[in-house]
Amino acid sequence: MTVVLYDSAVSGNCYKVRLLFALLGVEYERRELSVVDKSNREEELGDLNPGLRVPTVVLDDGRPLGESGAILWYFADETQFVPPDPFERAKVLQWMFFEQYSHEPFIAVARHWVLHDMAPSDEALEEKRRGGYVALDALERGLSDGRGFLAGEFSIADIALYAYTHVAHEGGFDLSGYPRIQAWIERVAAQPGYVPIEA
Amino acid sequence: MTVVLYDSAVSGNCYKVRLLFALLGVEYERRELSVVDKSNREEELGDLNPGLRVPTVVLDDGRPLGESGAILWYFADETQFVPPDPFERAKVLQWMFFEQYSHEPFIAVARHWVLHDMAPSDEALEEKRRGGYVALDALERGLSDGRGFLAGEFSIADIALYAYTHVAHEGGFDLSGYPRIQAWIERVAAQPGYVPIEA
Repeated sequence: MTVVLYDSAVSGNCYKVRLLFALLGVEYERRELSVVDKSNREEELGDLNPGLRVPTVVLDDGRPLGESGAILWYFADETQFVPPDPFERAKVLQWMFFEQYSHEPFIAVARHWVLHDMAPSDEALEEKRRGGYVALDALERGLSDGRGFLAGEFSIADIALYAYTHVAHEGGFDLSGYPRIQAWIERVAAQPGYVPIEA
Repeated sequence: MTVVLYDSAVSGNCYKVRLLFALLGVEYERRELSVVDKSNREEELGDLNPGLRVPTVVLDDGRPLGESGAILWYFADETQFVPPDPFERAKVLQWMFFEQYSHEPFIAVARHWVLHDMAPSDEALEEKRRGGYVALDALERGLSDGRGFLAGEFSIADIALYAYTHVAHEGGFDLSGYPRIQAWIERVAAQPGYVPIEA
């Protein structure tokens, strides 16, 4: 059996997993699920992930795992993409939890609404943009101590934050005021084995 | 130096850390910040946590760490509250990421709005309740295979999910239709060293 990824091509959360798999050379099979019509989620994912979300993976031994952050950790731990030091490991998780709570619900959702013309109102979209810029401010601050990456060397924290930040313009965000983020986006895209979100 | 916890007594995210510290016997100093008036967050947390959120801890060597999930992992790893097996570790993280993305933004926010009379509208509160029940359904499913806890033995996954689930009624949620959750709440509260949220 090969690893199976329940995937969505447009989803940044799924792209995190595809990017790590490309960097690590993990072979896997993609099964595309819609992020707009979710009517088949219970049928497809009910036995695999209580959260019914993509990405969900099924390991080569048949065990299922959900949540992009947990999948990244499982495959990257004990590789060069998760540091060995306990404090640096916690910093990686700090950024990954920050991304899921304070970044993704604004930047990814604004992009989702724009791409699929699903914004419930202009006010709701503006509120997502406000929250997104707060997250970008935090990310810019986090890159401010002269280090090239978020937690020491390039790690899954960078993968997790990169996924939606580098396509934030698709949700109407302007990154021109964020020079450290822009330079960091280029550093991530220069990693050996990198694949773009549309690959 | 002792560990410092930038805390809020009412915050379930902070309670996760206080509960783990009580179970582990970690001594620490509490510094209370408001979760309603956040005007001093930049001043208090600007140098410590780019996300400007509580909980934030400062370790006994002066290094700061933010995000409840990252703090739990840092202090609990290599104790009985994080399993040694790589797949079970990932399952712990799966539940912790699920909590921050799919549970807390609904169940904790509904409670926050009710406790502080801050709901922007009845419709907004109802939407939080709908999302919260979806998360409770997932949690009930996650407890369905006869195991007592979310990822093998009692772990920080249970601490992370317990924090806001056991006070969900304060946000208007009715847990009477969730027998597995109710039994699990009692099992968590029976852990040696347990402290309640108001302690």
